[in-house]
Amino acid sequence: MERHFHRDLAALKNDLLRMGALGQRMVQTAVKGLTDRDGALFAEVRRDEEQMNSLHMSLDERCFTLIALQQPAASDLRFLLAALKSISELERVGDQSINVVKSGEVLLREAPLKPLIDIPRMADLTQRMVHDSLRSFVDKDVELARSVLVTDDEVDALRDQVFRELLTYMLGDPTSITRALHLILISRSLERIADHATNIAEDVIFMAAGTDVRHRAVDQLVEAAREAGEAAR
Amino acid sequence: MERHFHRDLAALKNDLLRMGALGQRMVQTAVKGLTDRDGALFAEVRRDEEQMNSLHMSLDERCFTLIALQQPAASDLRFLLAALKSISELERVGDQSINVVKSGEVLLREAPLKPLIDIPRMADLTQRMVHDSLRSFVDKDVELARSVLVTDDEVDALRDQVFRELLTYMLGDPTSITRALHLILISRSLERIADHATNIAEDVIFMAAGTDVRHRAVDQLVEAAREAGEAAR
Repeated sequence: MERHFHRDLAALKNDLLRMGALGQRMVQTAVKGLTDRDGALFAEVRRDEEQMNSLHMSLDERCFTLIALQQPAASDLRFLLAALKSISELERVGDQSINVVKSGEVLLREAPLKPLIDIPRMADLTQRMVHDSLRSFVDKDVELARSVLVTDDEVDALRDQVFRELLTYMLGDPTSITRALHLILISRSLERIADHATNIAEDVIFMAAGTDVRHRAVDQLVEAAREAGEAAR
Repeated sequence: MERHFHRDLAALKNDLLRMGALGQRMVQTAVKGLTDRDGALFAEVRRDEEQMNSLHMSLDERCFTLIALQQPAASDLRFLLAALKSISELERVGDQSINVVKSGEVLLREAPLKPLIDIPRMADLTQRMVHDSLRSFVDKDVELARSVLVTDDEVDALRDQVFRELLTYMLGDPTSITRALHLILISRSLERIADHATNIAEDVIFMAAGTDVRHRAVDQLVEAAREAGEAAR
């Protein structure tokens, strides 16, 4: 049972990374569709979204089964609960990529407003954050998790810059308003993707700190209760 | 142990409702601050946010402890995992209320753009959704959960209406652009709060359907494995 559990856990980690890679690809493809003005790329993101949703369901179920069947030790349980959260963050990365696509589809029907510079930069940072947050989670790499939090500040700064610049366009030229609005919405979606990656990274930091400090009492209690239970049988 | 577990579960449900009520109040107070142009109400929301975060941490920990110590049966485990999700949805209701406050604070520094009608309506619907989703979760009331999904469509329709109306303001009068933009952002935050309530309600429906259909195999597997384990001891 024990060996199976560790094999299952390793497989789960692998699939989490795969789900993360899918999320990354969705962000990149959505923004590439925008910069290349290529609607076929938007269709690709919509196909990826279906895969994302089915990964979400199957990984969710696998976490449940592992917790229910294996009754894992406190630290493994904490990992599995964090995995459940990460899975749902990744599913939302997919949702937000679809929001980028929706605004992108509106924008492709009109002439380009301006060459896009900050939005592709936001997308680059954001997809890297998705990658690094998952990697830090699987490897329990607190340093990498911290770097995700730092990049999130960069993304927030870009979001503000995009907002100010597009506001200037809107104020100067009313015909730009609809397009500028959709670009602002896209930058907000990218910011939210960055937030989802940040949530995953925060859990990594929390788990590392928690095992040391906050949760030590609970973890000890759990082990003691189990030992007592086994002794009584 | 069994009796303690059910008492703990009842207390958890109670606290989930309390957390939901706090979320409701944050939404209402944030939008009331906007309509009454009363910054003191915004300060109240910021204070509530601290309470929300501390409830989030403590309920999260209690779910973990219940799972770890009590090794609940499959259906209770499913409930506790859904509770963990709901707790994190509610924390985000708090985050979004703070986003409403941030845009509200900008708006209070300028003259009102127009009498607000749709945004308070969105807030009313949204806070009711937060209430009903929690109530449906605690009572396992699938019908109530379904009604939350219906209201979400109303909220989405209002969001589109708000967008169109404010776009018209922006196109007609460039001095309205900044204020209109912040009102659009507020409507998006309210929409996201409605989405969080919808996520909770979807879990209620999924749990009800899942126990019947999708998860029956897994649940049976869990029980069989446990019985086998106990027989072997």
